[in-house]
Amino acid sequence: MSFNKLPLEPLYEKIEELKPKFIERLSKAVSIKSVSGDESLRPNVVEMSAFLVNELTNLGFEDIQLKDLGIQPPPVNDPELRLPPIVLGRYGNDSKKKTVLVYGHYDVQPASKEDGWSTEPFELVQVEDILYGRGSTDDKGPVMGWLNVIQAHRELGWELPVNLLVCFEGMEESGSLGLDDLIAKEAKNYFKNVDTVCISDNYWLGTTKPVLTYGLRGCNYYQIAINGPGADLHSGVFGGCVAEPMTDLIKIMSQLVDGKGKILIPGVYDMVAPVTEEENSLYDDIDFSVEELNAASGSNTALHQTKQDILKHRWRFPSLSLHGIEGAFSGGGAKTVIPAKVIGKFSIRTVPDIDSGKLDELVINYINKLFKDLSSPNTIKAELIHDGNYWVSNPFNDSFTAALYATQHVWNMKPDFTREGGSIPITLTFEQQLGTDVLLLPMGRGDDGAHSINEKLNIPNYINGCKTLGSYLHYYGKFESNK
Amino acid sequence: MSFNKLPLEPLYEKIEELKPKFIERLSKAVSIKSVSGDESLRPNVVEMSAFLVNELTNLGFEDIQLKDLGIQPPPVNDPELRLPPIVLGRYGNDSKKKTVLVYGHYDVQPASKEDGWSTEPFELVQVEDILYGRGSTDDKGPVMGWLNVIQAHRELGWELPVNLLVCFEGMEESGSLGLDDLIAKEAKNYFKNVDTVCISDNYWLGTTKPVLTYGLRGCNYYQIAINGPGADLHSGVFGGCVAEPMTDLIKIMSQLVDGKGKILIPGVYDMVAPVTEEENSLYDDIDFSVEELNAASGSNTALHQTKQDILKHRWRFPSLSLHGIEGAFSGGGAKTVIPAKVIGKFSIRTVPDIDSGKLDELVINYINKLFKDLSSPNTIKAELIHDGNYWVSNPFNDSFTAALYATQHVWNMKPDFTREGGSIPITLTFEQQLGTDVLLLPMGRGDDGAHSINEKLNIPNYINGCKTLGSYLHYYGKFESNK
Ligand SMILES: [Zn+2]
Ligand SMILES: [Zn+2]
Ligand SMILES: [Zn+2]
Ligand SMILES: [Zn+2]
Repeated sequence: MSFNKLPLEPLYEKIEELKPKFIERLSKAVSIKSVSGDESLRPNVVEMSAFLVNELTNLGFEDIQLKDLGIQPPPVNDPELRLPPIVLGRYGNDSKKKTVLVYGHYDVQPASKEDGWSTEPFELVQVEDILYGRGSTDDKGPVMGWLNVIQAHRELGWELPVNLLVCFEGMEESGSLGLDDLIAKEAKNYFKNVDTVCISDNYWLGTTKPVLTYGLRGCNYYQIAINGPGADLHSGVFGGCVAEPMTDLIKIMSQLVDGKGKILIPGVYDMVAPVTEEENSLYDDIDFSVEELNAASGSNTALHQTKQDILKHRWRFPSLSLHGIEGAFSGGGAKTVIPAKVIGKFSIRTVPDIDSGKLDELVINYINKLFKDLSSPNTIKAELIHDGNYWVSNPFNDSFTAALYATQHVWNMKPDFTREGGSIPITLTFEQQLGTDVLLLPMGRGDDGAHSINEKLNIPNYINGCKTLGSYLHYYGKFESNK
Repeated sequence: MSFNKLPLEPLYEKIEELKPKFIERLSKAVSIKSVSGDESLRPNVVEMSAFLVNELTNLGFEDIQLKDLGIQPPPVNDPELRLPPIVLGRYGNDSKKKTVLVYGHYDVQPASKEDGWSTEPFELVQVEDILYGRGSTDDKGPVMGWLNVIQAHRELGWELPVNLLVCFEGMEESGSLGLDDLIAKEAKNYFKNVDTVCISDNYWLGTTKPVLTYGLRGCNYYQIAINGPGADLHSGVFGGCVAEPMTDLIKIMSQLVDGKGKILIPGVYDMVAPVTEEENSLYDDIDFSVEELNAASGSNTALHQTKQDILKHRWRFPSLSLHGIEGAFSGGGAKTVIPAKVIGKFSIRTVPDIDSGKLDELVINYINKLFKDLSSPNTIKAELIHDGNYWVSNPFNDSFTAALYATQHVWNMKPDFTREGGSIPITLTFEQQLGTDVLLLPMGRGDDGAHSINEKLNIPNYINGCKTLGSYLHYYGKFESNK
């Protein structure tokens, strides 16, 4: 199917007409302090789920379910604390139509005026064409976006071109506790006819050009524990007399990555899929520059100077970061301690075709060999403490193509096809559990400040975002079913 | 003057007779919670100074002064908090006698039963011939020791062979705030006729043999601050794209010391005074073993296996310890942060003839050169943040010789002449400000646990310690005045 504009102008006009109502809807959502990381605000998170149920009911959703996820596992202050529910809803159930599952989260990051916000964080404040407020872009704006699309269709008297399922969770900012299990359980039940999954919970690369995101790096997080004396020692009494764990750890950590960002663990780069010529050319069109990287990092410390190099190192090459050391002196001032046990922390961002298990083997064996070469009387334990695989989709599948057409139609420009350096673990879970494609279709801009102070969503992004989500459903509905 | 036993048996008998009273005196002192590091206990520290004034008054001391040191400088919770006073007192003022200044401290380390004490820390509990309690050995035992010596002389009707000045401070465990200034101010006043200074605030090397301490290492404490991005970054988004300050810092820290404890900064060892043959032989007699080092460190991580090597590396060779990193991730678990600014901390223990200023130059230049070789876009600032010089005395001077005779007389054995790896800054202050010798004459054993739980003082050490302090005054009084 090639790009032929569908007759969506009435939908766009209706969305423009409803703009005040859509901003009002987002305003109500932002005013609910649904901070999942703050136990004392858990009732507000639950209130937010009730708000969604009410909205879904008014919009004619059916089979609305509040999935209880039970008690929140430790560490918690309140051992009886319940997880907020996952909200499920269905709009349309026509077996001749394809079914799109949309995921979003209704919880937000913490925020308080004292952190440096220019406005009240839990009040949606409009300044010119920008809406400020916690959750405006992450992720209440996109979640309201889906509701807005349904409202516009209803007011137009239009049928939806697909069946729509919604899955909204309330713990995304706190590790998505319970979500994986819920997806596994509902894969053959609530989610059984899903054709594709659309997630709007990431951002444009920059500020002027829409993007579709088809790849994410994975992350393998390691720690190196070195054990020496039975307790912390005084460096005056023991300095020069015992083998200090810090000395061993720093020696090992210094041999993991070089100052240019090159990983020094042999064999890692051998697993990285070569950049094809076709792929290489993808980077040329993308709207990005070293100035944007420097602005984002607040420094002139870029390791690469061309757009192509920067993006490849962010998206499709592995990287290794040294995060810190547990157990060593970490306060201000001077403390003359010889730490007895120190735990170095680092992680490797993974990309195709790095095999996670093989990587662990390379890393652990390399570290153990470095330690052996030190002939230290201390003991070592190097281990993986957390991993999440990379994700890469085919950017030419039906779902991406529908999103491409929708974006072209609404924004009058071709979106950039991007990857991201970080991970969104839920993407992989949906793909694997449902056996479907996943599309990342962001609404907000790269400078929205999702987890920072003065989080915002530009009104053009919110309103054109609604149009894009709606258009995506129409273009996607035109594809032949693959089933 | 060679060792001829003085007729001190009546003094020793009197001290044995007064043993219950001396334990009672120490018991009262321990019951006062004079913890200088806990602002809420400051009234108890002041109470302890009043207790001392009362004791000194009853014992016939004259010219007793409570030296007010003013407001405690920040950081403090209570900006009006006053420092505890320094207690000065004089016993005898005979211009024909020599004058000995004794220093001790009446404040103690914090302690609470919950830390794991077997007994109430602020209650002196006798179990067999051991007295348990916070401050028993550090430093209330030795301070009471000097009072006990005076009491014994008074009850015998003996004149003291020297003039005795006491200087007891209440902030030793909290950086001796105000003490240096007080000593400088009183050098030509209260302390003007002092011939020697005796400090009993360290410990035997082991548990069976008395020691006299004639050397302490110094300590130069450095930090290396590396500055990169404007704020902490997410390793998913920026990993592989920016020069990470942690990578640079770890590279530099890895080149300061090797796994065998050898300092890698060129030129440091060139400044170390060679070990003479005479000095070499001093180590042979000392009662120490690698097993004792291992027991003390709670591990088998000794870098050297012979007594001589261990003691030289503790006492008279420099050492370098990596203490930790400020600004990096230091908690438990996994955090995928790229720290924006990290500050590495390390210190070098110094010995004769290392020049502190020259050492700083070598260290800072070396670090700056290592950083330059990295060609990093980050910025560095390496600096000294604290230093204290080493101290070495002539162990054959009158004061040490008197202490040697006193120890031989009381303990029936020659003490070991030891140094210590750590620093006692006040030693150097007295030596420099008063222009006199300083003697370190410890009372307690190496396993007393000065800053640990279950701090203790063995009764034989307390009682023989009193005899030794008293005998020291008698032997020292026999030397010709040097003035
Ligand atoms: Zn989000
Ligand atoms: Zn978020
Ligand atoms: Zn002390
Ligand atoms: Zn102490």
